[in-house]
Amino acid sequence: MNLLLLEAAELDADNRALVTGRRERHLRDVLRAEVGARLRAGVIDGPLGTAHLEALTADGARVQFTPERHPAPVDDVLLLAVPRPKVLLRMLAHAAALGFARVVLFRTWRVDKSWLTSTAMQPDAWREQLLLGLEQAGRTQLPTVRFFDRFKPMVEDQLDALRLPAHRYVAHPAAAAATATLAAPSRSSGFALAIGPDGGWLPYEVDQLRLRGFCPISCGPHPLRTETALAVLTGQLQLLRDRR
Amino acid sequence: MNLLLLEAAELDADNRALVTGRRERHLRDVLRAEVGARLRAGVIDGPLGTAHLEALTADGARVQFTPERHPAPVDDVLLLAVPRPKVLLRMLAHAAALGFARVVLFRTWRVDKSWLTSTAMQPDAWREQLLLGLEQAGRTQLPTVRFFDRFKPMVEDQLDALRLPAHRYVAHPAAAAATATLAAPSRSSGFALAIGPDGGWLPYEVDQLRLRGFCPISCGPHPLRTETALAVLTGQLQLLRDRR
Repeated sequence: MNLLLLEAAELDADNRALVTGRRERHLRDVLRAEVGARLRAGVIDGPLGTAHLEALTADGARVQFTPERHPAPVDDVLLLAVPRPKVLLRMLAHAAALGFARVVLFRTWRVDKSWLTSTAMQPDAWREQLLLGLEQAGRTQLPTVRFFDRFKPMVEDQLDALRLPAHRYVAHPAAAAATATLAAPSRSSGFALAIGPDGGWLPYEVDQLRLRGFCPISCGPHPLRTETALAVLTGQLQLLRDRR
Repeated sequence: MNLLLLEAAELDADNRALVTGRRERHLRDVLRAEVGARLRAGVIDGPLGTAHLEALTADGARVQFTPERHPAPVDDVLLLAVPRPKVLLRMLAHAAALGFARVVLFRTWRVDKSWLTSTAMQPDAWREQLLLGLEQAGRTQLPTVRFFDRFKPMVEDQLDALRLPAHRYVAHPAAAAATATLAAPSRSSGFALAIGPDGGWLPYEVDQLRLRGFCPISCGPHPLRTETALAVLTGQLQLLRDRR
């Protein structure tokens, strides 16, 4: 936890909050924070700043938050075929840490239907992982997560309404375009990255995405697991953008 | 499993092998391969090629291997402060999939000593994960893994003997050099990437690495978990090399 994340509703009129539960235990047991400590903190979907630890009581840890700056909003979007439950949870934490603003989950042909009934598909489970990712990376913008049960209606009927960034990529090991040859996404706008299931997309699915402006890209001839591909491709796209 | 990996010792004089255990179960239950099938295959530390499934018997799956090409050798080296056991196993699979030739494990100040006695520190456990990574990525070069119990003797006395590539980087969120500003590593040589523990390096540890030619790099102002950082930074360094 590199950032103590507070919810706006936890703060009173003087910007004081009582921190309990997992965060309190982390403050006490891992950070071994003492009264008087100053901690990097932030408000979910709000500013970054400093929390002053004013008291440690049986009720929790009382902090006073001082906002310092509003991080620049991001608009990168991850479109993700639902992976198996454990991997989904880890990938949501990765997505939040990597700075995605939105995660769009959907089922493709090769997604195992049984995964959809897992507890990992519950919004509470999503939120917990997203918060862990934000705390790790020192970010405050909580990604939104939406789930579409079927691929075809999603791309045909819903994609326009999602108003995705203009720069769109679909991870596809067989793609002709290596990331090393890509034009960089614009610095001022986000990108959308679609990652299929471990077994890969159907040709039909890639075609549908291509029709809607997604450029198939590959990070090389060696297929990676979706979890690794997410980090590799996001890192590469961000690098290209930052070098512009 | 995108590649059926065989050991040279499994092959008879006619390049036939009897595949058993986990690989056989995968052929039967996941790939549902039938007699006559042709599968992408490779020999550990040897060529890539095709395996022809000749028979499925109670003893195992009999395949005939036809070598096709020798993949170009790689010399990228991962220096990794021992992470907690579960993460270590995943990171070894990632390292093999990402194409590292060597993994050098070591203990730094912030590595929990109890992790060193885990079964995840046994060479058999390493090998299993490395093979999974190779099978995923369609690679045959099995990374070597060495463990040094202490950081100081390793950097002071052993680093020269490791003959690391000239391009050396140490992941350090506080580094002045963002990967976006780096000169690209040479196309013709490997690079060494050092990744510390989740709690970070001590300043002394970074200084020692810097003295030995490691350039501190950061993939941005947002600290990532070691597992994510490995994939992000490797992807970025490989991209820079490929764009040269």
